Amino acid sequence: MADLHITSAANPRVKTLVGLRRRRARSDAGLTLVEGLEETLLATTAGARLRELYYCPELFGAGAHELVPQLREGVGHVVRLSRPVFEKVAYREGPDGILAVADSVAADLAALRLPQSPLLLLAEAVEKPGNLGAMLRTADGAGVDAVLAADPVTDWSNPNLVRASKGTVFSVPVAADSTQAVLAWLAEHGIALVATTPDTDLHYADVDYTGPVAIAVGAEKTGLTDAALAAATYRVRIPMAGRADSLNVATSAAIVAYEAVRQRR
Amino acid sequence: MADLHITSAANPRVKTLVGLRRRRARSDAGLTLVEGLEETLLATTAGARLRELYYCPELFGAGAHELVPQLREGVGHVVRLSRPVFEKVAYREGPDGILAVADSVAADLAALRLPQSPLLLLAEAVEKPGNLGAMLRTADGAGVDAVLAADPVTDWSNPNLVRASKGTVFSVPVAADSTQAVLAWLAEHGIALVATTPDTDLHYADVDYTGPVAIAVGAEKTGLTDAALAAATYRVRIPMAGRADSLNVATSAAIVAYEAVRQRR
Repeated sequence: MADLHITSAANPRVKTLVGLRRRRARSDAGLTLVEGLEETLLATTAGARLRELYYCPELFGAGAHELVPQLREGVGHVVRLSRPVFEKVAYREGPDGILAVADSVAADLAALRLPQSPLLLLAEAVEKPGNLGAMLRTADGAGVDAVLAADPVTDWSNPNLVRASKGTVFSVPVAADSTQAVLAWLAEHGIALVATTPDTDLHYADVDYTGPVAIAVGAEKTGLTDAALAAATYRVRIPMAGRADSLNVATSAAIVAYEAVRQRR
Repeated sequence: MADLHITSAANPRVKTLVGLRRRRARSDAGLTLVEGLEETLLATTAGARLRELYYCPELFGAGAHELVPQLREGVGHVVRLSRPVFEKVAYREGPDGILAVADSVAADLAALRLPQSPLLLLAEAVEKPGNLGAMLRTADGAGVDAVLAADPVTDWSNPNLVRASKGTVFSVPVAADSTQAVLAWLAEHGIALVATTPDTDLHYADVDYTGPVAIAVGAEKTGLTDAALAAATYRVRIPMAGRADSLNVATSAAIVAYEAVRQRR
């Protein structure tokens, strides 16, 4: 049986797809979007569950014809879209004819299962999906047990975050809650909070990361809030030889996370 | 006297500006493009010399009217563009009405002035301007003495690199040459080469970075070439708990560079 073939942008499915670009619609539906052949393969490899797969052979690049049968396995709804319709639902420039709808990742703090001495990353009010995606890649590489979003500005199902994470948002445990709730949860679980800030003399490498610890970075422009800094077990700085803002927030998280990994060898 | 006001996209200056998006044109002219108010301010603060400044008040965001007088100081040619013309010369989405032409940064290996025990970053055939820009920010933060491009795919004057570097391309010394020439130069100057690769058992933190040393990362997809690996004093790996490609090349460079900074405290 041939796949459903949609050629009208007025089709309700198309409208629903476009709607998933809005955070509220993703949150209500518990769904996220994954666009691109490579991204979708990475997502499924990392454990994403695809609900729907949309494809447009006219836009396929090398390898797509061979890989789509693998992608579509077990997916409930597989739909072919005409080129104009696909270009309407695609959210990035230069679409390659693959778009999937997947279950959102669970982000419930209470549901996290942690080892004895967890290593966590905490992103407070980080805005850019690319930075959160990069933090997830670092977490995957460093073996971080979970990445927590406090007072999140960007949801874990943001399609640009999903893309920047290279699929790791589906494999690294995540959670999201208010800063207050996250701080309370850390205290309750006896997890030390190491807060990065330029306003301290303590070098980040002079802290012991071998126990249960969460490394916190704040918003791109303003850093961690006073509430997070006040709750910190240690406030640490990454030495900056140049301008104060030279390090990107995800780079800062990677530097401190890998110091923790070094100490934990 | 009012500034020259260009309203025709057929104006030769406009054609020259658009032409500077091509690497060859930049290289022949010894010029680079800096777009955006914040970027141009960062560039001038970092020491960029502006040759020409183009502006379009109709596209200005907050603060631009107040800051343009500061930007234009000492610039030989200041030209107002009509909105359609500015949108033609702009190279990014959502232009804010500021575009500058600046002198390219010098990238001559022989001209580098180094301290006694330099710390260098080496990017071999790294493709993405964003990754090279991020490496420059890390170099600025870590106090790296210079960033070398070996067999460069992207030139140091690439406008997207300039943007991603947040102006640091104008403050951090850079150089570019063939891999062969760069390796010969390192050997000649007695600088140890620490090559990052997954194919080794040596942990990156088990190497001594307190002497003259260059930390090398390779192309996004293929890593360092055999030539670079063969010339390495040490081949080191960054432990990866997750998937082999989870760390971005600029993140890898930051992790090892900051280990060097830690050891050099």
